[in-house]
Amino acid sequence: MKSLLFHTDATDLQVKAAQRALMTAGAANITRMSSAGRTLMLVEDSAGLIDIQEFGKMPGVEVAMEASSKNGHVATAENSPIYDSGIEGLTIIAGPCGIETEEQVSAIFARMASEGIRYVRAGAYKPRTSPHDYQGPGEGGLEMASEIARDYGLQLVSEVVDPRDVEFAVQHVAMIQIGTRSMQNFALLKEAGRSGMPVLLKRGMSATVEEWIGAAEHALTAGAETVIFCERGIRTFETSTRNTLDLLGAMALKERTRLRVIADPSHAAGRRSLVAPGALAAIAAGLDGVIVEVHHDPASARSDAAQALPLDDFSVLMEKIRNIREALRI
Amino acid sequence: MKSLLFHTDATDLQVKAAQRALMTAGAANITRMSSAGRTLMLVEDSAGLIDIQEFGKMPGVEVAMEASSKNGHVATAENSPIYDSGIEGLTIIAGPCGIETEEQVSAIFARMASEGIRYVRAGAYKPRTSPHDYQGPGEGGLEMASEIARDYGLQLVSEVVDPRDVEFAVQHVAMIQIGTRSMQNFALLKEAGRSGMPVLLKRGMSATVEEWIGAAEHALTAGAETVIFCERGIRTFETSTRNTLDLLGAMALKERTRLRVIADPSHAAGRRSLVAPGALAAIAAGLDGVIVEVHHDPASARSDAAQALPLDDFSVLMEKIRNIREALRI
Amino acid sequence: MKSLLFHTDATDLQVKAAQRALMTAGAANITRMSSAGRTLMLVEDSAGLIDIQEFGKMPGVEVAMEASSKNGHVATAENSPIYDSGIEGLTIIAGPCGIETEEQVSAIFARMASEGIRYVRAGAYKPRTSPHDYQGPGEGGLEMASEIARDYGLQLVSEVVDPRDVEFAVQHVAMIQIGTRSMQNFALLKEAGRSGMPVLLKRGMSATVEEWIGAAEHALTAGAETVIFCERGIRTFETSTRNTLDLLGAMALKERTRLRVIADPSHAAGRRSLVAPGALAAIAAGLDGVIVEVHHDPASARSDAAQALPLDDFSVLMEKIRNIREALRI
Amino acid sequence: MKSLLFHTDATDLQVKAAQRALMTAGAANITRMSSAGRTLMLVEDSAGLIDIQEFGKMPGVEVAMEASSKNGHVATAENSPIYDSGIEGLTIIAGPCGIETEEQVSAIFARMASEGIRYVRAGAYKPRTSPHDYQGPGEGGLEMASEIARDYGLQLVSEVVDPRDVEFAVQHVAMIQIGTRSMQNFALLKEAGRSGMPVLLKRGMSATVEEWIGAAEHALTAGAETVIFCERGIRTFETSTRNTLDLLGAMALKERTRLRVIADPSHAAGRRSLVAPGALAAIAAGLDGVIVEVHHDPASARSDAAQALPLDDFSVLMEKIRNIREALRI
Repeated sequence: MKSLLFHTDATDLQVKAAQRALMTAGAANITRMSSAGRTLMLVEDSAGLIDIQEFGKMPGVEVAMEASSKNGHVATAENSPIYDSGIEGLTIIAGPCGIETEEQVSAIFARMASEGIRYVRAGAYKPRTSPHDYQGPGEGGLEMASEIARDYGLQLVSEVVDPRDVEFAVQHVAMIQIGTRSMQNFALLKEAGRSGMPVLLKRGMSATVEEWIGAAEHALTAGAETVIFCERGIRTFETSTRNTLDLLGAMALKERTRLRVIADPSHAAGRRSLVAPGALAAIAAGLDGVIVEVHHDPASARSDAAQALPLDDFSVLMEKIRNIREALRI
Repeated sequence: MKSLLFHTDATDLQVKAAQRALMTAGAANITRMSSAGRTLMLVEDSAGLIDIQEFGKMPGVEVAMEASSKNGHVATAENSPIYDSGIEGLTIIAGPCGIETEEQVSAIFARMASEGIRYVRAGAYKPRTSPHDYQGPGEGGLEMASEIARDYGLQLVSEVVDPRDVEFAVQHVAMIQIGTRSMQNFALLKEAGRSGMPVLLKRGMSATVEEWIGAAEHALTAGAETVIFCERGIRTFETSTRNTLDLLGAMALKERTRLRVIADPSHAAGRRSLVAPGALAAIAAGLDGVIVEVHHDPASARSDAAQALPLDDFSVLMEKIRNIREALRI
Repeated sequence: MKSLLFHTDATDLQVKAAQRALMTAGAANITRMSSAGRTLMLVEDSAGLIDIQEFGKMPGVEVAMEASSKNGHVATAENSPIYDSGIEGLTIIAGPCGIETEEQVSAIFARMASEGIRYVRAGAYKPRTSPHDYQGPGEGGLEMASEIARDYGLQLVSEVVDPRDVEFAVQHVAMIQIGTRSMQNFALLKEAGRSGMPVLLKRGMSATVEEWIGAAEHALTAGAETVIFCERGIRTFETSTRNTLDLLGAMALKERTRLRVIADPSHAAGRRSLVAPGALAAIAAGLDGVIVEVHHDPASARSDAAQALPLDDFSVLMEKIRNIREALRI
Repeated sequence: MKSLLFHTDATDLQVKAAQRALMTAGAANITRMSSAGRTLMLVEDSAGLIDIQEFGKMPGVEVAMEASSKNGHVATAENSPIYDSGIEGLTIIAGPCGIETEEQVSAIFARMASEGIRYVRAGAYKPRTSPHDYQGPGEGGLEMASEIARDYGLQLVSEVVDPRDVEFAVQHVAMIQIGTRSMQNFALLKEAGRSGMPVLLKRGMSATVEEWIGAAEHALTAGAETVIFCERGIRTFETSTRNTLDLLGAMALKERTRLRVIADPSHAAGRRSLVAPGALAAIAAGLDGVIVEVHHDPASARSDAAQALPLDDFSVLMEKIRNIREALRI
């Protein structure tokens, strides 16, 4: 929230001129209050487009004020090109939901390497709603996937759910993924941050953009090299997709940080046919990349089978993303 | 919901083969039930990808069944190319939120005509949250906008909120818009349908895809020539945008109908900076067009000033949409 | 939003004293801004507990300001005891979802009369998601139910969905119900208001308290004798109940108006077993009554069969409500 | 989901009789499918009211089937009266949001003891959205609060957010609280469960009842003595309260378990004036207790000041709860 306080002798024309200038500059909403000759203008500027001090110099204005933000790291941290992968300027991450067998991981990583992808995903610790579901292969799986990634010259991105697993995981991954259920697991964010690794931070299922920034601030404050935000769909009343992909919420975040914001269309869509539409939409909207679940044999996948993209479909998607980037001359 | 009932002597291998085949075909979810030697498989197929009768012929299956749907018009109606506008294959609609002055309408429509747009929007009856807010110019405004549209060879799209206004409106518009607050105003849908006009049907703020289809069925059953669905953002907990643009929900609808589905990024975004990202995302996802609020002087707009796109920005957007279409070779 | 502007020479102690006093008085949130020696305090007071002008007299404060509200009728209208029914101080309304047969209506109204209820509900015009579903008996049904109600000395409450039906309906009902899908059907609200009748205003499925107030303001401005607000559950991600009964949201509304606010546990719950818990909770929270769906033979009900309360269960519920009122000595 | 499969020669009357019997028994929804002479009936029974095998004996039915559930502990675990506190049959927990000073904790616990409360709450580890906010006093605070509780013969309930803190915490608390942000922190649930302590499990901000049950199953499977579920408001679009208290969702859970389900009206309401209404509603609905934030000097509370109940208000609330229990003769 930002505000302009007018002098007691400010004219109505001066007040209107300031209001019009603020609207032109992109204010989302303006509220006026008056009493005893004083006029106050409250300015909502969620896009961060307005340098309120500039408006403080307009005729009739006594002073411009704004509430200070707490999340300085997210606001000031610089982006880094080193996380480009697959397509210049974009962070593209792909791979299976879970680590299953050596054959599965090899088949998928081999293809990702030939697609020019640099980052691959594959989960060893799976947070499952029921304790009676398969919880993933754990450390052994992580080591195996990490070795196969190295063989293909790839960097592994993998989720950690327990702060006590961070120490082991950082020896095998190039980027720590914080899942949607862990976005406000502050002990985990701190431990991941302390490792100095880059953190792929999925948005909590019902987290506001503000809370998402707060979570990133936890990781950055603890020492994370960078945070890559990942929009993966929020929980709403709609059930025709698994979650609701909030691309404009992610773009609203981009207006507040230079850090990368990418999208995960797989978990949002929940089914194969909508993954490419979601990925293409994310790139066209202006996000910095995508993370996609792929599988060499989706029908046999142990988890998320319905949303895994076959390898050939992924190749087509990559070509379309390249074309869109070209079309938008970004 | 679809189902497969297995013979009492079906083998476990036969059951597993059917399940695998269904997953490969795109089933969103499968539930198995057994009792007294009988096995039943319930198949969720929200994308409508599965012809269950085909699976009824697999070994071990006794019979395939499915629940019948009530919304036949939406499922069977054909798309029509006559609603293309601006860019081949797309329905592009643009114009001011509300009809204000002759000068305003002329300035905006003139530019739309020169952009090659065929459909323009402009509201005469404004549904406002408070009765003390300006409710729009009504009939006089509609007549005026309609004449200016005709002068520029444009077709007017405008919202009607009262069933008693349909008779007047259809003499002045080429397409009746049903707004988000009216999506389940069945008396209005019926009246609009009876006119035989095409109906631009905005999604209700908290309407499921299923309810949206039901609303279209009301208009089609009453006689509407066609329905163009318009996703305009749903209501969620997130406040960084005015509404949450549900592009994948709109794509899920497209899997169930040949009718057009377009997006309104202006009302979803609620602010200028996110309108183009939303429009480009919609086109890249595969939707059939967009409706965008534009204004020759946004800061002076009487309603929705913060989200109106200046005319030059709209021209840039049109060019980018053309490029994306080309890039995706659709 | 309310605000306090401090003098340039206000001390830190004076600012803190004001902040503490505002918290004690019930401020929901306080934001401080400072610049060039000026301090501004923004006060969120959603409960309307704070008379900000009182705080304008505190040492160090130059002026207190607040944004003006548009919805004056809702804020100032008086409550009226004439809508008590069944239990003193409460508005209790009960009856079947839809008007089916004379025998059905008689059986139910007879029992309601013997329970001491004064208002009965029964729907003639049913807003249905699909046009192929039964739409209710219309005018004939309304006349029939109205006559039976009169025979038992009862007042009929019934929903109208088309503004053109208001004229007919007001001859047969004592209170016009505006359903959840019509809460922002402003043409209908206006027509209902013009009749001068009391309006039972259901909350829109995704309407904020603010929008609900705006809808009531439409009816009151048009001439409605009074508005009785009815919370009937909002749409959320949770599916274990049909909707989510927002009792505290309804209580938040009560803090802003003297008009009655009641609850409809039947549509929120969506199943019989949770109707009484919802009704008792509403009364214990402090709401002004309930509207409940009852049926003499729920399994045969043509609509909402799963949530209709058998008549004997309703009698038990009435006794418990009486006991709770006594227990809370309200 | 449950289902009835009919014989090929079942009559229409037999099918209708079964459907009617299921509706009468409380089925939430029934879907019929037919093909090649076979009829299948799918029965939604979210309240768990239907023993489908009983219906398998009806004429015309070949077999009744149902999908098996994974969460056996929650379904079968017994309730225990030992967690009664304050009022017979209810679990009442009260105390400050955070542990601040010895004087603060003593003042509040002393009063709770004199109110007959047995369980007190007070937080040592505070999960905060921003890393720059105060994170609580940690271990020292927990020891201090634990000693003061013991002095007054009280049992301490306190939140743990890091699995590595469980070992320390269990030496000082009688019940481990898992907060809303940690509901799906499975590493933490497992560690808490292993301690054998009872677990107070807050519902995640956007957790379905199903996921809430899954989380409890994690703790019970790991060894928790019992789980006390705590509804604390879910995240919705409504902002007039901090969260939306979902009392009927909590009651829907009670239909599926004998374990205790209580409510936290303080975090749902977010402001003092709505805490008692929420608590009374919870008890009247039939929940097993409440947890309430109280403070001897709310205006000075370091966190959640706006929602802390003054001690005298808490006494009034306790009396009203006693009266309601009496009134409902539960």
